[in-house]
Amino acid sequence: MNATLKHYIEKIEPYDKNALAAAHAYNASLLKIPQSLGRIEELAEKLAAISGKVKNIFQKKCIIIMAADNGITAQKVSSAPQSVTATMTECFTKKVTGVGVFARISASDLIVYDVGIKSDIKDASVINKKLMRGTNDFSIGPAMNPEIAEKAVLTGIQAVKTAIDAGYGVIGTGEMGIGNTSTSTAVICALTEASVAECADSGTGMVDDEALKNKINAIEKGLKINRPDKSDPLDVLAKVGGLDIAALTGVYLGCAYYKVPVVIDGYISSCAAYVAYRLNTHTKDYMIESHRTEEVGYKIIEKQMGLRPMFDLHMRLGEGSGCPFAFFAIDCANAMMNYMYTFEQGMISSEYTDKIDNLKF
Amino acid sequence: MNATLKHYIEKIEPYDKNALAAAHAYNASLLKIPQSLGRIEELAEKLAAISGKVKNIFQKKCIIIMAADNGITAQKVSSAPQSVTATMTECFTKKVTGVGVFARISASDLIVYDVGIKSDIKDASVINKKLMRGTNDFSIGPAMNPEIAEKAVLTGIQAVKTAIDAGYGVIGTGEMGIGNTSTSTAVICALTEASVAECADSGTGMVDDEALKNKINAIEKGLKINRPDKSDPLDVLAKVGGLDIAALTGVYLGCAYYKVPVVIDGYISSCAAYVAYRLNTHTKDYMIESHRTEEVGYKIIEKQMGLRPMFDLHMRLGEGSGCPFAFFAIDCANAMMNYMYTFEQGMISSEYTDKIDNLKF
Repeated sequence: MNATLKHYIEKIEPYDKNALAAAHAYNASLLKIPQSLGRIEELAEKLAAISGKVKNIFQKKCIIIMAADNGITAQKVSSAPQSVTATMTECFTKKVTGVGVFARISASDLIVYDVGIKSDIKDASVINKKLMRGTNDFSIGPAMNPEIAEKAVLTGIQAVKTAIDAGYGVIGTGEMGIGNTSTSTAVICALTEASVAECADSGTGMVDDEALKNKINAIEKGLKINRPDKSDPLDVLAKVGGLDIAALTGVYLGCAYYKVPVVIDGYISSCAAYVAYRLNTHTKDYMIESHRTEEVGYKIIEKQMGLRPMFDLHMRLGEGSGCPFAFFAIDCANAMMNYMYTFEQGMISSEYTDKIDNLKF
Repeated sequence: MNATLKHYIEKIEPYDKNALAAAHAYNASLLKIPQSLGRIEELAEKLAAISGKVKNIFQKKCIIIMAADNGITAQKVSSAPQSVTATMTECFTKKVTGVGVFARISASDLIVYDVGIKSDIKDASVINKKLMRGTNDFSIGPAMNPEIAEKAVLTGIQAVKTAIDAGYGVIGTGEMGIGNTSTSTAVICALTEASVAECADSGTGMVDDEALKNKINAIEKGLKINRPDKSDPLDVLAKVGGLDIAALTGVYLGCAYYKVPVVIDGYISSCAAYVAYRLNTHTKDYMIESHRTEEVGYKIIEKQMGLRPMFDLHMRLGEGSGCPFAFFAIDCANAMMNYMYTFEQGMISSEYTDKIDNLKF
């Protein structure tokens, strides 16, 4: 493995348990029944453990979107033409797609990277880090060589550093790439030995029965031909993954390395979270769940990582479209710690607060 | 029944099914896989059916909080002293409680009514519509007389009218009143014939085993002595309800009457939603679910009304604290209809979009 990448992976630390305890104690002093704000309280405490501070405010929020094409589309695994990757990518920065319209409401920015789109992207606000013009068809050989896969991961880590330097305090993960539910399913099956038939579904829903059959066949063939090493997530990424998944894996690693909260979105984003988790389980300390995405393969990741999504919105668009919901919850959690009165400030009598310690919950 | 109140209840109409169909058709033209934004799409279409317009923006959002005291606290059903109702009410307008800190993030206002707090409220920004200085103890007789109950409901309807006149386009529901999980449980049991033991829990969590026993006994006694008429929700409100529940029932009726979306929060808010629903089932057309509140009695309402909360936050504070989350979803739904490109605007080829109609989802 590339020495720089090895450094990033190995230097990731667990979050700050002292800050967690301090946040828990402060939270208990706030003007509410303990635990009555449930997941928002947990979130507030986790954010403290990530940042090392009891009270946090993230003035700037962004979603990093990694876009790339996938050679596996040659096997007719998707109903959408490959050109849709480029078309959608050029729409992102205008905030006119799913993730964009929601990002407007959560006052967050989209930072869009081309890490491997087949065609040239005209939109100058898309950051050009093209590593290939689409990956190779993994049903007939490796999607990319190991060096390219590592470069894609490093691109994600670097994207986090750049975002932090620009003042972003919380980062969401998004992606675009026709065929990327196929690559995600291949990666998950390779890493968990789940069966392809169990893990694959119709992706975003735009796949008919024949395409679904093609999809399952192509993934099974790819796993058989490439023999990805279950214990080596980077080998799996290179052989049956995609540049978007690899770059997002880097975003998760980078956020954990630099101690910044990172929001999980949909299926592809969750797949990348799982790859990062397999590279270093401490990465999970920095991940914030958002919604329960609908794809069947997601349930495997949810179980493997013990994820607990906060929102049940029946969404499955990807792009990062679930991140703004978690951003809202994060802002609420921070507001609770910053602005809520303590019992003392609220002048609630000790007759009442003394009781709290003696009660079972 | 008071003739004015009768008029409001009877004149509530179902939402606009033509606008619903128009919104559904427009939604299908948007730049995303159909139904991939799940509940947000449903919400966008429901908002259109409520307003009668395909595209909506609610510039101003508010949460109407109804605060009142409950005589049932004399039976030691709650661990908090009754004075907490007044103390918390005076904190609301400062936005330093649960609902307040979240309202800051969703850019929404709190409109606080005193509809029956025992003591005088010094905070002049709390609107004084005091109908009693706390209700009577319903375990020994009716909580209030029928005229007062109707006045409380009318106060809620009037509060909606006032909010609409002030430019609010969407309204959330909140409450404060020590003892109001007891009154809510009594109302739900009276209306559904659910058993008190099945429906009651430790309220906000601040109740020990003895208080829970007191609570169940007091509610059972109140139902036995008062014999509320299951088929007459106003009789139930007067005999075993509270002024906060009655006023919130009015908020739901008012929003349905004036065709404004109204957000359900926690247990007491859900109880009031159910009373309104029992008075006229069309009210449900105007209600927006938010989170699944934790109290066990809520599950009865969820089932009776077929509610489907979007958020699973393990919250149970009340105050209206769940409303800002739904406000965020509402803003996202509106942003989708207002700002998302259509397939045509996104210049996605017809090769792709033609396929959509032929696919199964």
